[in-house]
Amino acid sequence: MNPRYDIQSAPTKLGVLIPGMGAVATTFIAGVYAILKNQAKPVGSLTQMGTIRLGKRTEHRSPMIKDFVPLATLDGLVFGGWDIFSDNLYQAATIAGVLQQETLDSIRNELENITPMPAVFDKTFVRNLDGNHIKRGNDKWTLANQLRDDIRHFKEQHGLDQAVMIWCGSTEVYINQSEAHLTLERFETGLKENDASISPSMIYTWAALKEGVPYANGAPNLAVDIPALQELAKIEGVPIAGKDFKTGQTLMKTIIAPGLKSRMLGISGWYSTNILGNRDGEVLDDPGSFKTKEVSKLSVLDTILQPHLNPDLYGDLYHKVRIDYYPPRGDNKEGWDNIDIFGWLEYPMQIKINFLCRDSILAAPIVLDLALFLNLAQRAKMSGIQEWLSFYFKSPMVTEGLYPEHDLFIQLKKLKNTLRYMMGEELITHLGLEYYEN
Amino acid sequence: MNPRYDIQSAPTKLGVLIPGMGAVATTFIAGVYAILKNQAKPVGSLTQMGTIRLGKRTEHRSPMIKDFVPLATLDGLVFGGWDIFSDNLYQAATIAGVLQQETLDSIRNELENITPMPAVFDKTFVRNLDGNHIKRGNDKWTLANQLRDDIRHFKEQHGLDQAVMIWCGSTEVYINQSEAHLTLERFETGLKENDASISPSMIYTWAALKEGVPYANGAPNLAVDIPALQELAKIEGVPIAGKDFKTGQTLMKTIIAPGLKSRMLGISGWYSTNILGNRDGEVLDDPGSFKTKEVSKLSVLDTILQPHLNPDLYGDLYHKVRIDYYPPRGDNKEGWDNIDIFGWLEYPMQIKINFLCRDSILAAPIVLDLALFLNLAQRAKMSGIQEWLSFYFKSPMVTEGLYPEHDLFIQLKKLKNTLRYMMGEELITHLGLEYYEN
Amino acid sequence: MNPRYDIQSAPTKLGVLIPGMGAVATTFIAGVYAILKNQAKPVGSLTQMGTIRLGKRTEHRSPMIKDFVPLATLDGLVFGGWDIFSDNLYQAATIAGVLQQETLDSIRNELENITPMPAVFDKTFVRNLDGNHIKRGNDKWTLANQLRDDIRHFKEQHGLDQAVMIWCGSTEVYINQSEAHLTLERFETGLKENDASISPSMIYTWAALKEGVPYANGAPNLAVDIPALQELAKIEGVPIAGKDFKTGQTLMKTIIAPGLKSRMLGISGWYSTNILGNRDGEVLDDPGSFKTKEVSKLSVLDTILQPHLNPDLYGDLYHKVRIDYYPPRGDNKEGWDNIDIFGWLEYPMQIKINFLCRDSILAAPIVLDLALFLNLAQRAKMSGIQEWLSFYFKSPMVTEGLYPEHDLFIQLKKLKNTLRYMMGEELITHLGLEYYEN
Amino acid sequence: MNPRYDIQSAPTKLGVLIPGMGAVATTFIAGVYAILKNQAKPVGSLTQMGTIRLGKRTEHRSPMIKDFVPLATLDGLVFGGWDIFSDNLYQAATIAGVLQQETLDSIRNELENITPMPAVFDKTFVRNLDGNHIKRGNDKWTLANQLRDDIRHFKEQHGLDQAVMIWCGSTEVYINQSEAHLTLERFETGLKENDASISPSMIYTWAALKEGVPYANGAPNLAVDIPALQELAKIEGVPIAGKDFKTGQTLMKTIIAPGLKSRMLGISGWYSTNILGNRDGEVLDDPGSFKTKEVSKLSVLDTILQPHLNPDLYGDLYHKVRIDYYPPRGDNKEGWDNIDIFGWLEYPMQIKINFLCRDSILAAPIVLDLALFLNLAQRAKMSGIQEWLSFYFKSPMVTEGLYPEHDLFIQLKKLKNTLRYMMGEELITHLGLEYYEN
Repeated sequence: MNPRYDIQSAPTKLGVLIPGMGAVATTFIAGVYAILKNQAKPVGSLTQMGTIRLGKRTEHRSPMIKDFVPLATLDGLVFGGWDIFSDNLYQAATIAGVLQQETLDSIRNELENITPMPAVFDKTFVRNLDGNHIKRGNDKWTLANQLRDDIRHFKEQHGLDQAVMIWCGSTEVYINQSEAHLTLERFETGLKENDASISPSMIYTWAALKEGVPYANGAPNLAVDIPALQELAKIEGVPIAGKDFKTGQTLMKTIIAPGLKSRMLGISGWYSTNILGNRDGEVLDDPGSFKTKEVSKLSVLDTILQPHLNPDLYGDLYHKVRIDYYPPRGDNKEGWDNIDIFGWLEYPMQIKINFLCRDSILAAPIVLDLALFLNLAQRAKMSGIQEWLSFYFKSPMVTEGLYPEHDLFIQLKKLKNTLRYMMGEELITHLGLEYYEN
Repeated sequence: MNPRYDIQSAPTKLGVLIPGMGAVATTFIAGVYAILKNQAKPVGSLTQMGTIRLGKRTEHRSPMIKDFVPLATLDGLVFGGWDIFSDNLYQAATIAGVLQQETLDSIRNELENITPMPAVFDKTFVRNLDGNHIKRGNDKWTLANQLRDDIRHFKEQHGLDQAVMIWCGSTEVYINQSEAHLTLERFETGLKENDASISPSMIYTWAALKEGVPYANGAPNLAVDIPALQELAKIEGVPIAGKDFKTGQTLMKTIIAPGLKSRMLGISGWYSTNILGNRDGEVLDDPGSFKTKEVSKLSVLDTILQPHLNPDLYGDLYHKVRIDYYPPRGDNKEGWDNIDIFGWLEYPMQIKINFLCRDSILAAPIVLDLALFLNLAQRAKMSGIQEWLSFYFKSPMVTEGLYPEHDLFIQLKKLKNTLRYMMGEELITHLGLEYYEN
Repeated sequence: MNPRYDIQSAPTKLGVLIPGMGAVATTFIAGVYAILKNQAKPVGSLTQMGTIRLGKRTEHRSPMIKDFVPLATLDGLVFGGWDIFSDNLYQAATIAGVLQQETLDSIRNELENITPMPAVFDKTFVRNLDGNHIKRGNDKWTLANQLRDDIRHFKEQHGLDQAVMIWCGSTEVYINQSEAHLTLERFETGLKENDASISPSMIYTWAALKEGVPYANGAPNLAVDIPALQELAKIEGVPIAGKDFKTGQTLMKTIIAPGLKSRMLGISGWYSTNILGNRDGEVLDDPGSFKTKEVSKLSVLDTILQPHLNPDLYGDLYHKVRIDYYPPRGDNKEGWDNIDIFGWLEYPMQIKINFLCRDSILAAPIVLDLALFLNLAQRAKMSGIQEWLSFYFKSPMVTEGLYPEHDLFIQLKKLKNTLRYMMGEELITHLGLEYYEN
Repeated sequence: MNPRYDIQSAPTKLGVLIPGMGAVATTFIAGVYAILKNQAKPVGSLTQMGTIRLGKRTEHRSPMIKDFVPLATLDGLVFGGWDIFSDNLYQAATIAGVLQQETLDSIRNELENITPMPAVFDKTFVRNLDGNHIKRGNDKWTLANQLRDDIRHFKEQHGLDQAVMIWCGSTEVYINQSEAHLTLERFETGLKENDASISPSMIYTWAALKEGVPYANGAPNLAVDIPALQELAKIEGVPIAGKDFKTGQTLMKTIIAPGLKSRMLGISGWYSTNILGNRDGEVLDDPGSFKTKEVSKLSVLDTILQPHLNPDLYGDLYHKVRIDYYPPRGDNKEGWDNIDIFGWLEYPMQIKINFLCRDSILAAPIVLDLALFLNLAQRAKMSGIQEWLSFYFKSPMVTEGLYPEHDLFIQLKKLKNTLRYMMGEELITHLGLEYYEN
């Protein structure tokens, strides 16, 4: 059993750089510290808790994923990042209100030691937020290079060879691809000329890639999802992934829609509403940011259900997504879905799903997995879009000419078969006829 | 592209024999007639509505399954069966109250032409039912041979070469495997000696297999799930499948549990309650029949979640299943699930699912698919347990030494890869790295 | 036991005139015919099904309301009205899709005999509708007098002495009270000068009152809820009632909110969303019409909960109401409410309510009750606002200086004690200490 | 405004004696201490948070109830009681797991100062519990007199003139009224002869009444609901109340059922299921205790809906109540209700209610209110059954020949009008016609 890829061994230290150190980032970082103190388990993380079946069912080989592929370990992670508020992470986590105060108090020192660097911010892209911990510069080129300096400085300071960047910032307003997004050359000219279509998240991405740092985009805005930056990723040989962490309601949607489709049950309507009271809810109360999110959330069903192949079942599906800011809940999001389905002879039935979830609790282990898997990919010399990480995203990026896979179960198969392939193990097809042959 | 199996072409006529011609059977049969008159679509049927992706995503090859493998067609199906009431199928469908009267009226002639043959029945196995259309005989051996005569007569009468039998009768009381179930020899002795552990569903199975008729078991009682009858299936070279049609709440469970597990989300409790008012509900009001159903429903989570591999996530799961007879709903079942899950740092969340479903509407297309696929399997010379049909069952049967797959998505992969394999197409692994190589 | 009021006996025939003959009106009228043929019961109607307790609990006197007060009977009702479409009521009811076709077919003749008169319509007040069966005239004064002619003609044609008018038309866009609404004089000048602030529903009201016809307003727009028309009601001695039929989600709200308040349970948030797919949903997709509805729906909680008296419990309540047009459901509305409450020591709890309701089915018996009770009030010489009919409205009208009662149980008490008072029966206080005295 | 009753002024100290110092009792007592330290509000308590409207709506007189009638104050309450475990209340509250540990820690001293006295216990009445802190005695008469001694000792020790007793113990198994329950004489003979039909809760009641201590029964077992003890209450001139605190699902039922009935909406089925994981759930897992609870819960709908008066609407109602022990939730009960209703022309609709409640949080303020109101009643020289406290009970006791009122809104009216009557204020009828008279 020889690995198909020649994978460099895991680093003892790995930098994790995060633009946007709010609820998700602090929950992730505080969580890692609490886990290292054995206070809690990294539930929700495939890299830490997951197993992978190898060979036949009768072989009973199911190692932990972290024992199967060479990953950085939690005690080697070094955290840094940027935010528009200057609070240290103990303060920021307290304001976020996700974790219990006693958890935060037990790791107060570690959290107080981390203070965000000043952020690149542009209010035209996030209208409902105001911050005061912000970089100044004459143009976007200058700001971008300040970020490169930050990255280099962070690596030197902590003696790091390797790092990854995971965007955990707010959702930017909806924009279409424009000229400056099409080629790297035009993009860099745009940076220098302060092109209005270049958003802060793109500036961070550019800086990361130029520094050879893999980049994942946890929000639905374009960021790395433009040709210019994908070109840069290829040139620099850096893996990228995105976009929009798949949590909460959309996670449920990508579980249930494939299930209904597997049985050829028709769907006439899918109504989804969300109530949430955190900063994310506040940002999405702006129609521009909501539009970005809505596009990301709506696309999911079409790709799973393939109405062009199944017009009788999904051709008339009415899909509506609502997000309502509702302060009484804080970070505890709640999703309600009503699904109007039909079966044999088109008789109608209904499914209603009420999900009392916690946004940051669902997102934090995704940040961890992406950090470790992107670093693994870099050491395996994989670059550009990592489609096998689609599993983590609402709007998975794919290469030109391909449709994305939204079905969570196809995504998981893709991820696990990629790991098997990396390590020279047989791919699993679930055929299993051999068990029944004499 | 050469078929790996040498599959005999599809018959122009196929007999479908059904023990238990109540709500499910009449909904299935009436539905086929309505579909043949273009009044409605066979929604929910993979054989009629499903497509199968072949080759690479970029090839855009997704034929209908019915165009890909040679299946019997709807207009060639000939229906027959047994019931403890002598009503013709128009009367029985009217009593069942599943389909609208105007649908039934439009196919009244076809339905009135079908009258059940007298059933083999034993009240000790179904305590809450009483019927008067029942075979008489000195012992179970005699009754079994009356069924063989029925089958032969039915085939002659309609000029059929091929037939399948699908059990749609009520759930029998819970029994454990006993002596008479272990070998074919003891079983046949048991038939002659009126062994109390041989239930009506086993007698039907024996008769079917002796006549070379494939058999599927839609209820959770043992029936074909005993060594004696599996031995017979192998001897006669007949495919079998079971057990317990996967509809309603358990269908949802096998959709959602794999989804939660894929993300390594822990589960501390799963509470499921059902209300239903049809004959099925009445039968399950008897604790003996309920026990059979409960065992079938409870087993699902363990196999999907693998608590031995994931003790931190699923080791303490409290799983409770309730079925309550609730007349106001008739055939419209309603399931309520509460799922207590936990994520990052073990923080709790909840999912609640309310499924307003229609039992017979969900079961009818399963009857159709099993009839066509079992016949396909027979023509492909596959015999014994058809694990690739696990997709349709709450308690899939597997060969000794194997654990069953309950995950609906693994089951679907298994089914579709089996079809691909039969026809000499490449199996799909969802690796997809080739799209990203230069 | 002498009636306190000198009530004229009930008429043998009573005209019921309805502006807006859509889903609600046709369901009401078709229902009356079906009930008269003993096909179904007038469920939901207090006048037809309700009883009223008289005297002490130990007296066991609980007559039917219709046997207690002199009401017109169903077989004496004569229906007429106006609509922007010229379909007869059989056609209109078929399009509305509320009642089963077989019900409509059984009373087809009766329904076909009723054709709406051309409506007074102004698209600036209902932007999402277009009709072609519309009155023409140079100014609103002319149109108003055409309506008076219609009323007189209708009464003559059917030999009626008495009639009532119940507005069942669409919700008009939100407007504030303006000059022309303040006095009758200015209003009539406004009619002549085509004042833009006078809506069609006001024109109908004016015509009704001038003809001595009691008027109830089933929609949330102002209509009779302006000083000018209330002045006219007093001058003409005509009873009026309004506004906005209390059905569906708001009905539930006025049931549950008083319940929570009775126990002094705090409420921090109440989130309500509705999906509906009928013409009402289409009209409310226009923000102007939605605003009118929203104001009506939001006001309810404040008056029930009295946050000024209970600031610790209800001072910070976040109340959000959504209505989403969702075509898959047709007339079957669905409401979802999430209520965040808190109890002892402010510990949080949640209530979630899912109401699968049918809008027109809930509204139809209200139309009936209002018709009969308004006619009763007129015969009892009660004029102006009938606060005792608050029970039927989302936004009950009250005399100046009073706050409305929204609590359904106070409203019912008010209604029943008014009937007891009319008939000279003792009012019920539920004190009941006398049962325990020696 | 002269009080109709001559009410003795409130005592500065009031003893509150509680048999069964588990979750409810500790939540109540700890809560009072936390409230006295201004850490939280007595939400859910009518005596502490409630107002009462006096006179006309235009008078705007709505004093706090505690300012209107003379009640004992929180700082005068002195707590004592009995339990089958010897833990002090800090320990007991910690085990109960209802209140947050930081709340308990802030009042640790106060709680540690209270240790239950040994209980009268009989395992045949509560099969799923075992305790070791139990009184010994040759017969029930001896045990009963030990309780009288406890009460006298408690009053002396704390210098109390007045006390009340509120049963917060577990639900005893279902028993019917028997001989020994019929007269006081037979009951006292029964005590001496160890009659098997006399349960511990009856022994406590007898002891309380003999000591002149008012008694309320928070559980559904008979206790004070037998003629013998009601006779004793009259003889001793002591007020009594019961039975079964109205919390959670039944509370919602008595809110919603009157609401539906007020509108004459029919009900064909009401399915209620509960999941709970506390000691209460454990006790109710025993069929004997569950039967007692079930009877209490089922009776509610009949009395509210009066099917004999409304046979078309409620004559065929199928009512089913389930309670399932579900450990993952601890004290956080969850109720699910499905209500099948029908409206105009009998068209069906559905209401589904999901209540995420906390049992002890809802019960604690009831204990407080009953303590204060029973003491008020005693000072007003009211004795025997206090029907005006029906508001707090699932199965309100009434005098012979009367049916109980289950409608929460009638109960509240009864309670408030009783207070108004006590203080010489006008009773409120909600007639309100005077506002509209000239």
